[in-house]
Amino acid sequence: MAAVASLVEHGDRPSAASAPEHEDALTALVDLVRSDLEDCNKVIVARMESPVALIPQLAAHIVAAGGKRLRPLLTLAAAKLCGYAGGSRHVDLAACVEFIHTATLLHDDVVDESRLRRGLASANAVFGNKASVLVGDFLFARSFQLMVDDGSLKVLGILSKAAATIAEGEVLQLVTQNDLSTTETRYLEVIKGKTAALFAAACQVGGVVAGRPEIEELALAEYGMKLGIAFQLVDDALDYAADQATLGKTVGDDFREGKITMPVLVAFVTGDERERAFWQRTIEKQEHAEGDLEEAMRLIELHGAIKATLDRAAQFSREAKAALNIFPDSPVRHALAGVADYTVQRVR
Amino acid sequence: MAAVASLVEHGDRPSAASAPEHEDALTALVDLVRSDLEDCNKVIVARMESPVALIPQLAAHIVAAGGKRLRPLLTLAAAKLCGYAGGSRHVDLAACVEFIHTATLLHDDVVDESRLRRGLASANAVFGNKASVLVGDFLFARSFQLMVDDGSLKVLGILSKAAATIAEGEVLQLVTQNDLSTTETRYLEVIKGKTAALFAAACQVGGVVAGRPEIEELALAEYGMKLGIAFQLVDDALDYAADQATLGKTVGDDFREGKITMPVLVAFVTGDERERAFWQRTIEKQEHAEGDLEEAMRLIELHGAIKATLDRAAQFSREAKAALNIFPDSPVRHALAGVADYTVQRVR
Repeated sequence: MAAVASLVEHGDRPSAASAPEHEDALTALVDLVRSDLEDCNKVIVARMESPVALIPQLAAHIVAAGGKRLRPLLTLAAAKLCGYAGGSRHVDLAACVEFIHTATLLHDDVVDESRLRRGLASANAVFGNKASVLVGDFLFARSFQLMVDDGSLKVLGILSKAAATIAEGEVLQLVTQNDLSTTETRYLEVIKGKTAALFAAACQVGGVVAGRPEIEELALAEYGMKLGIAFQLVDDALDYAADQATLGKTVGDDFREGKITMPVLVAFVTGDERERAFWQRTIEKQEHAEGDLEEAMRLIELHGAIKATLDRAAQFSREAKAALNIFPDSPVRHALAGVADYTVQRVR
Repeated sequence: MAAVASLVEHGDRPSAASAPEHEDALTALVDLVRSDLEDCNKVIVARMESPVALIPQLAAHIVAAGGKRLRPLLTLAAAKLCGYAGGSRHVDLAACVEFIHTATLLHDDVVDESRLRRGLASANAVFGNKASVLVGDFLFARSFQLMVDDGSLKVLGILSKAAATIAEGEVLQLVTQNDLSTTETRYLEVIKGKTAALFAAACQVGGVVAGRPEIEELALAEYGMKLGIAFQLVDDALDYAADQATLGKTVGDDFREGKITMPVLVAFVTGDERERAFWQRTIEKQEHAEGDLEEAMRLIELHGAIKATLDRAAQFSREAKAALNIFPDSPVRHALAGVADYTVQRVR
């Protein structure tokens, strides 16, 4: 259970009814690759070393703090699903994936001016924005060094493309911020870029190291992409539906920053004139008053915007599972499907 | 002359006595690779494209603004020195080098809270810190995509290592900031990392694409490393010796930020008790009063700290030139040696 807790994004617990089954799915996946995951953690700790002491100090704050390892877990599981054996390439590449993810987290927290991450003070809050930007750069460069050591141009191509796509998604999010004319399509582009692209790449490289046919690689990428979209949709729902203790970050961050997410889009589009004026004032003009977050949550609840968001997440989760159908049934496939369920169920 | 002006880091002009010879050296180098440099500019513009319009907009502000192209020029010249012919790999890799450099500039300006870059408003001043961080990430990722397209793991290894070293140098600079106990050795580590490592890599990859023996590659790396150190020493001298119009950035930036550079180290170490108290107040405690910059410049002048800094730069410049001696004499070798002279002479 401790292993599960450390892997769950926000430490929130599913309701009693659904908890055992879905938590079991995640536990099952961890159990299936446990020794690889432990090796991956060792690679992460070893490769964030630097003669400049602040680098491992700051990196440890975020990377080794027992936080999420969902993306490297996907790489390890995908490799196992494809029958990879006899090497440690999947372990090294899982560490690469986590380094890229960590670099983006460090930069995200600077960009979003976040004070909390995983329930603890964020790295920028502790070490300052400057150090967070630069250590993010270091981890990003280090991840490429690890890939070069691995020696596959194909893997380098997949992950460098993912890194560029993540940055594009983040910039697009910045551009759409405070803009209520953002369409659902554009919102989906943002979350595909900022979140799902790395899920997809993490899964795909697991297939690449196993030397599987392209159709399997692409099925893994598809699973990861759909899983990532579902994951981010749920994350965006949680920002208006959870309490701070379970969320592990400041509740209402998206609202305060004027981020355009699915719950807001649904509530805005279905709201009446007075409600639209509320969203325009708070999200577009960023004029906030006491009680605004509560009012936002009330309107989102009123229009069923959380449910609408989670319904879309559930659809992407189903598509993620469907992408796995080309693989023969196995405990890993079963557990990966279970993770897709868990991603959606964790909030209900 | 216009080409030279656009290539010179700070647009400052050497004194009348030394100008013709050294500017001619730089012009000669540009002339020798002019068509490659034009091709490189085309690659830069083409590869900073993105469906997210803000990315090329912001990138153009810094990358295509006719600014310096010193590092890609080194790659192109090194390739020519090594007799590379019949391909465009050097052009693509020169663009990679410029992308890495540009990404670090964007992040530097955020970290340093700079308002000016090359005499114009910095990207963070125009587009904000958030966009600068994220577009920097994009350009960094894009540079790796370009390298993957090139297909050489050796080149990827050299440039990913350089990228990690740059970040280490930047973090070390942050750590030593405001710390007058910083040694000259440690200061040199900082500038080797933040500046010279990319000069070295830029030169080395020119030799790699030409398929030259390792001894020539390493000689090029040595030339680049020493040139980069000399270059940064002169840059650090200029921050206390130039006026804003010629410097192209805010004069006294290093002083205001409490950066530990060679002029300050020399003045601090050779100063009397009252002067040390001045440096402790301004650099360590960051307590600034009217007239402090002028006093800092006076003390630096008094102790010959600019001359001492430039003398060290001249020594590194000589070592840079010496590293070229294994190559047969040629117009390119002559021009590269001239650039080493120019780097030091531009301030005198």
